[in-house]
Amino acid sequence: MQKSEFLYNNWYVAGFSGDLGKEPLGRKICGKSIVLFRDGAGKAAALEDRCIHRGMPLSRGGECAGGMIRCPYHGLEYNVAGLCTKIPGQDRIPAEARLKTYPLVERDALLWVWPGDAAKADPAQIVPYPYHVEAGWVWSRSHLHVAAGWQLLNDNLLDLSHLQYVHRKTIGGNPEEDARAKLASKRDGNRVHVSRWLLDMDAPPFHRAVCGFNGRIDRWQEIEFQPGVLRFYSGATEAGTGAYEGRREGGMHIRHFHAITPETATSTNYFFSLARNFNVGDADLTDKMHKMMVATFEEDRAILEPQQVNLSAEPGRDLTNIMTDIGTAHARRIIAELLAAEGGR
Amino acid sequence: MQKSEFLYNNWYVAGFSGDLGKEPLGRKICGKSIVLFRDGAGKAAALEDRCIHRGMPLSRGGECAGGMIRCPYHGLEYNVAGLCTKIPGQDRIPAEARLKTYPLVERDALLWVWPGDAAKADPAQIVPYPYHVEAGWVWSRSHLHVAAGWQLLNDNLLDLSHLQYVHRKTIGGNPEEDARAKLASKRDGNRVHVSRWLLDMDAPPFHRAVCGFNGRIDRWQEIEFQPGVLRFYSGATEAGTGAYEGRREGGMHIRHFHAITPETATSTNYFFSLARNFNVGDADLTDKMHKMMVATFEEDRAILEPQQVNLSAEPGRDLTNIMTDIGTAHARRIIAELLAAEGGR
Amino acid sequence: MQKSEFLYNNWYVAGFSGDLGKEPLGRKICGKSIVLFRDGAGKAAALEDRCIHRGMPLSRGGECAGGMIRCPYHGLEYNVAGLCTKIPGQDRIPAEARLKTYPLVERDALLWVWPGDAAKADPAQIVPYPYHVEAGWVWSRSHLHVAAGWQLLNDNLLDLSHLQYVHRKTIGGNPEEDARAKLASKRDGNRVHVSRWLLDMDAPPFHRAVCGFNGRIDRWQEIEFQPGVLRFYSGATEAGTGAYEGRREGGMHIRHFHAITPETATSTNYFFSLARNFNVGDADLTDKMHKMMVATFEEDRAILEPQQVNLSAEPGRDLTNIMTDIGTAHARRIIAELLAAEGGR
Repeated sequence: MQKSEFLYNNWYVAGFSGDLGKEPLGRKICGKSIVLFRDGAGKAAALEDRCIHRGMPLSRGGECAGGMIRCPYHGLEYNVAGLCTKIPGQDRIPAEARLKTYPLVERDALLWVWPGDAAKADPAQIVPYPYHVEAGWVWSRSHLHVAAGWQLLNDNLLDLSHLQYVHRKTIGGNPEEDARAKLASKRDGNRVHVSRWLLDMDAPPFHRAVCGFNGRIDRWQEIEFQPGVLRFYSGATEAGTGAYEGRREGGMHIRHFHAITPETATSTNYFFSLARNFNVGDADLTDKMHKMMVATFEEDRAILEPQQVNLSAEPGRDLTNIMTDIGTAHARRIIAELLAAEGGR
Repeated sequence: MQKSEFLYNNWYVAGFSGDLGKEPLGRKICGKSIVLFRDGAGKAAALEDRCIHRGMPLSRGGECAGGMIRCPYHGLEYNVAGLCTKIPGQDRIPAEARLKTYPLVERDALLWVWPGDAAKADPAQIVPYPYHVEAGWVWSRSHLHVAAGWQLLNDNLLDLSHLQYVHRKTIGGNPEEDARAKLASKRDGNRVHVSRWLLDMDAPPFHRAVCGFNGRIDRWQEIEFQPGVLRFYSGATEAGTGAYEGRREGGMHIRHFHAITPETATSTNYFFSLARNFNVGDADLTDKMHKMMVATFEEDRAILEPQQVNLSAEPGRDLTNIMTDIGTAHARRIIAELLAAEGGR
Repeated sequence: MQKSEFLYNNWYVAGFSGDLGKEPLGRKICGKSIVLFRDGAGKAAALEDRCIHRGMPLSRGGECAGGMIRCPYHGLEYNVAGLCTKIPGQDRIPAEARLKTYPLVERDALLWVWPGDAAKADPAQIVPYPYHVEAGWVWSRSHLHVAAGWQLLNDNLLDLSHLQYVHRKTIGGNPEEDARAKLASKRDGNRVHVSRWLLDMDAPPFHRAVCGFNGRIDRWQEIEFQPGVLRFYSGATEAGTGAYEGRREGGMHIRHFHAITPETATSTNYFFSLARNFNVGDADLTDKMHKMMVATFEEDRAILEPQQVNLSAEPGRDLTNIMTDIGTAHARRIIAELLAAEGGR
């Protein structure tokens, strides 16, 4: 490829805080191999995952000790600033013995990494996600490695008209009814807002299982997209109780977090959480919701991976937007603009 | 590669009629992804296997309903002419919303597809195969995906001197005896005829198991090749009863059908049937013959796949024809001429 | 790649004598597919593994009979000089019907093959290895296929400072102590000598298990490298008994043989033996040592394969030598000089 297809100057989620303990964690982001580890005080850092000596990935068996990460091969050690602090068998450590570091911010139980130009990394651009840390919420997390490019995952989440086809066994409703969804989208800088209202519909399996709905419901999905992350507010009340007009009392209210982190041009790490503030002490409910969430993921993967195979076979060929792609189209335009600004394609 | 190595303007078997039921069937032919499905009346059609919207392969979870095939992702529907007939969430369907169609003929329990220029597709060029449909015959079918180019499968079937080496446990005889085979081949337009007579030989395992031969036999193989399909008449009688002179009464008479359908440059879908008109009510015999047929296939695959690995390592390097390649040489010349006529290599 | 990365004009081990029985043995060396077989008198030969007829690898099911190797596909036969001696179904064998041969020397229970210019193959360049054949020694052998280039295996064996990190459960000692190793290396023509002494150290697991050491030991490793092969003399005595000064009586004395045979640019066949001349009748000890040797290999593989992945991602990027690389640096220079002399890179 002539131009990069990665948007490097962006914050991406490398994992959840809980994914990074005493062992280092290797993650490829935008084609760059990165190792995350914690120093003695628990502070997380991100370095290039390649020892200066023989190119060994530090994440493959490396150990953290004394605030350093140690190469599993010959024991070279590095601190969180990437400086080599020990070379076994020699006293002098050359000044150029250092690894590239990547800006890392740990916030809201998420590990955010910036694979691009460090001088441009502004933590203020990271979106807040209070539902992972505020009292009164319970959440579970999941991670899926998908053999499809990140754009396909963005598309998937921004055009929810796929629910009634792909997710019929989990969160999808009746196709004919769902096709009547009230859809709206607007672009706001480099963010996209999408709202989707489904009024007077049959409750899908998830809603029946989680909230005991057994009749008609009014249902909404509100999405905020920016490259790398989508925050969802989705919920439902009994049909005709005025949710669309603003009365969203009772019923089901869920916050989803979706981080879409490009790995290679055709693979993505997908991090997901699901938070609720009702029945927070009900561990069985948490477990049930988690399992349905993971099942829903797998339904998406069964679509995304064959889709990528088809697209990879004819890389230059156009796709056709339809009416439900209003959010998708905004997002693709934003990414195209940002890529062009970075000098990518 | 500069020039195509596929012969597009040709009828290929995409499957047996019985392979295509209510679910769509995806098949790559000459590098083209094609989906087969049946409309409400059972009529089969072949479309490009790529939804106009997001490039999703329709065959991966698509459904047939109301005569249409529906994309599994967002529910777009297409008719047998490739026209998009429904886009959920919008009323207007653009005129250009259509998929490429491929000529398809269903005949003799076979689904024939033409991946090339539709204007040149003449159903009269399809070879008849009555043994699948005429009364008095019983047959079984099989399908093997082989990681080797189609030319290697053609070679395999046209030079049967491999039987005594590859198929010693199934249909091969004694190497020294088999080397005395009376071999003849002639080209007839774009067809090749090969006949091979083995007189006064020990019966191979298949012949012993299927027909109870336990002594010496006279054996024949008559092949008609044209690109994409080989029709075999093979049989045997007790040695010295005059088969070679024209008296083929009694003994074993079998019709094989071999369809060689290029998938990629180095992979092939191989469809095979075996028909007989003796002991047609003997289901155990059908089963026994079927199992030996499949075992024979696997013996070929064990040859063809390593052969392809060797050839792929040195693509331009010549092979050497030997005497037993008379049929092979005709077939390779026909394919080369047809490829040149199409502008391929 | 513009230039070859293989050093063709070199003797490589294709296997142990015991690996080659009545069945032919296929081995790719420096990217060349080679088949080894024995004639009727047991003499081993190496031919190109590709039948002239249809390119079939002879090693994939070929048979040896009457001193010939027979193609598994159509039965063509070749003698140890590569001449085709039989083409079933025809009397005349063209003079050009022959396979390329490779110089092969069987010596010291090893099969040495020269993949380069046969005119330059001098058996006198093959290093002797008496421990495989002399009385008084017992040895076991192993073979590992590693998805990493041969240079990485050379590096691994020439910089033993990895032992205390990679092999902590087998042959590695305490990292802090081992870092005090006395290291020396010198180049001698196209050979490299490395010696490494570890004085007054805790005995590693292997030494405890094999020789009953349970306290402090003096330990040495003496290596002779030339491209394709490393011969090791390693041993240990109780600490302070004068080994370093020349008194190596008693204790543990082991000879290792390591053959590093390039397969492709990023894969290697690694042949290994371990010989001892103490307790030679103790079969349990032989078995125990063999198992620890194989476990040690697997520890190396867990390093080498991810290392290769990292290096392949950025092929042109430099590595950084450290003090412990003195032997490694000599070896890389020798290989670079020999490659340049051959016209490779």
